[in-house]
Amino acid sequence: MQATRRDTAVAQDSPYRYQELADFITRLVESATLLPGSRAPSLRQISRERGTSLATALKAYRLLEDRGVLEARPQSGFYVAGNTRARLEAPAISKPPSSPRTVSLSSVVLRLFEYASDPSLVPLGCAVPSPDLLAAGRLDRLLAKAARNRGVERNRYTVPKGDRVLRVELARRAPRWGGTLSPEDLVLTCGCTEALTLALQALSRPGDTIAIESPTYFGLLHTIEVLNLKALELPTDPLSGVDPEALEQALQTRSVTACLFSSSFNNPLGCTPSDERKLELLRLLGKHRVPLIEDDIYGDIFFGQRRPTPFNALDPAADVIYCSSFSKTVAPGYRTGWIAPGRHMQRVLERKMAFTLSGLPLPQSALAEYLASGGYDRHLRRIRAIFRDNLERMSQAVGRFFPQGTRVSRPSGGFVLWVELPKRIDTRELFGLALEHGICFAPGDVFSSTKRYGHCMRLSCGTPWSAGIERALETLGHLVRDALEAR
Amino acid sequence: MQATRRDTAVAQDSPYRYQELADFITRLVESATLLPGSRAPSLRQISRERGTSLATALKAYRLLEDRGVLEARPQSGFYVAGNTRARLEAPAISKPPSSPRTVSLSSVVLRLFEYASDPSLVPLGCAVPSPDLLAAGRLDRLLAKAARNRGVERNRYTVPKGDRVLRVELARRAPRWGGTLSPEDLVLTCGCTEALTLALQALSRPGDTIAIESPTYFGLLHTIEVLNLKALELPTDPLSGVDPEALEQALQTRSVTACLFSSSFNNPLGCTPSDERKLELLRLLGKHRVPLIEDDIYGDIFFGQRRPTPFNALDPAADVIYCSSFSKTVAPGYRTGWIAPGRHMQRVLERKMAFTLSGLPLPQSALAEYLASGGYDRHLRRIRAIFRDNLERMSQAVGRFFPQGTRVSRPSGGFVLWVELPKRIDTRELFGLALEHGICFAPGDVFSSTKRYGHCMRLSCGTPWSAGIERALETLGHLVRDALEAR
Repeated sequence: MQATRRDTAVAQDSPYRYQELADFITRLVESATLLPGSRAPSLRQISRERGTSLATALKAYRLLEDRGVLEARPQSGFYVAGNTRARLEAPAISKPPSSPRTVSLSSVVLRLFEYASDPSLVPLGCAVPSPDLLAAGRLDRLLAKAARNRGVERNRYTVPKGDRVLRVELARRAPRWGGTLSPEDLVLTCGCTEALTLALQALSRPGDTIAIESPTYFGLLHTIEVLNLKALELPTDPLSGVDPEALEQALQTRSVTACLFSSSFNNPLGCTPSDERKLELLRLLGKHRVPLIEDDIYGDIFFGQRRPTPFNALDPAADVIYCSSFSKTVAPGYRTGWIAPGRHMQRVLERKMAFTLSGLPLPQSALAEYLASGGYDRHLRRIRAIFRDNLERMSQAVGRFFPQGTRVSRPSGGFVLWVELPKRIDTRELFGLALEHGICFAPGDVFSSTKRYGHCMRLSCGTPWSAGIERALETLGHLVRDALEAR
Repeated sequence: MQATRRDTAVAQDSPYRYQELADFITRLVESATLLPGSRAPSLRQISRERGTSLATALKAYRLLEDRGVLEARPQSGFYVAGNTRARLEAPAISKPPSSPRTVSLSSVVLRLFEYASDPSLVPLGCAVPSPDLLAAGRLDRLLAKAARNRGVERNRYTVPKGDRVLRVELARRAPRWGGTLSPEDLVLTCGCTEALTLALQALSRPGDTIAIESPTYFGLLHTIEVLNLKALELPTDPLSGVDPEALEQALQTRSVTACLFSSSFNNPLGCTPSDERKLELLRLLGKHRVPLIEDDIYGDIFFGQRRPTPFNALDPAADVIYCSSFSKTVAPGYRTGWIAPGRHMQRVLERKMAFTLSGLPLPQSALAEYLASGGYDRHLRRIRAIFRDNLERMSQAVGRFFPQGTRVSRPSGGFVLWVELPKRIDTRELFGLALEHGICFAPGDVFSSTKRYGHCMRLSCGTPWSAGIERALETLGHLVRDALEAR
């Protein structure tokens, strides 16, 4: 324990003592006094040295865990974050073709969704948290209460924008991500899927080009295909997101109808552009008068010190349609998302009425009461820690079981891992073999309209870590090695 | 009571005595021995004359009520059906233009849906039953139970086709309408709206022509508009439906991508083609290889002796996509419909995944248990009688309050009334005036892409009859008369 003289001056009687202790540890990490991967001082040791109670030390370490500075390892104590991931290189920036492509993935995507609901498979395929992990018990009790007490009265269509009380609650939460929204700015949707579909249909016509990150979520590519749009995939850095130079070039040389980017923790890369980069992207879009659809579905699952700020909060005057949902954080089964369409409200509402007319009043009511009655933030803190731990273990297991040359993403939020295997590997072939072993993952080729990611895979870490998952990764590792040797 | 000799031979000890009594009365009506509008023999009288118990007589009369032969009038007894509607003429067959049109109704339709959720208006505007009338209490209790007991486990996406148990229950009910379906033939949707949208998107591309009934439900026209399709409105008889000759001519002279017809009780006309006419329409469509989308959402709300048979049950080999939902019969708030896409399953499923991904497992479970546990048919019998009574009273009130020359539809099911006013009346103007009086109805012009029905209106009878509704009709009548005098 190498505390400097200055740091021992922490006020002993401050009510924020644990925060001061956390800041002290953070400085040690930032100054490389404590190295990534090293064991942090034990709680007993640090509390003795800093003259705090054990409880205060634990509170400080939990805060540092929330901030991604430390990581707890069961039965082992706290470690400085970032070591094991550093062992494996991060993937390089993507280099998709510079022309828009039609997409044809539907049949594969449909199969992936079917496998996702097969309980006999180890579920590394779909980016849906396991129900046990979400533990939506309180929400379900609120739904039961709403059904009993308000079932008859609510057995009708909602107003076109959806249950107003839920919109009030969502608007109240907007300041947490730096936004300002009124309930009237929001339309409730059937998950983020409907929000994105409405946005795309409001802005585009068949044949139009949508610029997206590469790789990108296969569900989005599938929607682009079904709407007869073209995808223009932009070079995307696995740490910092879409390359502004590439975007500028695309906007100058192509007719781009809209862009669709992740606000936070791109699926599958897990990357988030910095605020500066987001503002630069917005500036370019504004200059070329191209609207942005932003997908913030993973925003609340951040591991760092603060939640990423969505595009529309960074520049409220920009032409942005904001989309998100509860599906990754608390209730995939409630199918409730939302869209803030900005200046496109009328067209979005018209499409909402035409495609699904109304959401379900009772589940919307239950979600509203769930948000109003507190505890959602506590729940988020809990699942963030679990997802981060899962990702860390998954990274470690990939490092342990997969061959030399494997690269993995370093997500700072969300719960998916992107794995780049040696180029000779065909993960679609591997996918078939893995299914025979009862393991599902998402093969890389479905994350692009090209065959560019045929040697990659996405692993979902949405399920509590178990020996079964570890064994599945060992099996996958064997399959990869076998495939390498066979070539 | 003019029973013939033969009829007195009813077997006194038959367990089906009430059915035999019902048949006896039916023959009296069919032979015009009992005239439409006349009072039926009292229960006391008929039971004495036919040697049955009072209970058996009541059971027979209730059956005849279900079959639409008799009508009960509170505090007055049973009457032979059909008198008062005959007072007003039925509207004539429609004569829409013979060329396809683009549609532009969205802004009006959006306002109509907004008014529909305004509790301060007399709700004659939207074709949604009032929550009080549906009394979905048992369904809500099943939802509460599902949320409590299976909330955690079901907090995930369903399989792509939706909850299998509900699909099993729906398939089990298919024989009631003459159909044969397996659970795998069905996809659950967000109401009939999503079912129709999926069908349209699976079959067509922007710019294509869809042939429809005229007048037709404005929500459908709105969807056609939003999908950038063209509507070809076909002449439609208010009693027998689409004119086969007109259809044949259209198919010979136009490029029609698909037809979309009601299976039963067209909204707004309330008409159902006979089985023979349906088969004739199917024959024409088969000859020209044009698929049919059928909307059977009102099928279970029939007033006659049997449920209308949908197109796909009359000819299972025909290229038909079948759509329906629970929204008119038990649970508009549960947003659960279904589609049997036939040979278009793959395209429909792909679009389902792209647009909304999954429905809600808990409400789908609750509906499955609701169907499995019995009582849905009893519920249907109850609401059928109420809707029929409402329509009858509404017809009478229109006859009483509206000016000479008014025509009303004679629906044999459903719960909307189509009213044709003198041609000089502009119901859009009337709509504005009615809203000022706190009354909402659906103005005629939104039921066509042309201005053809600007003198018509649709009145919804989905709300229990009340003095307030009667007053609203009186007010509407005054407004119509004032408008006539002002011209």
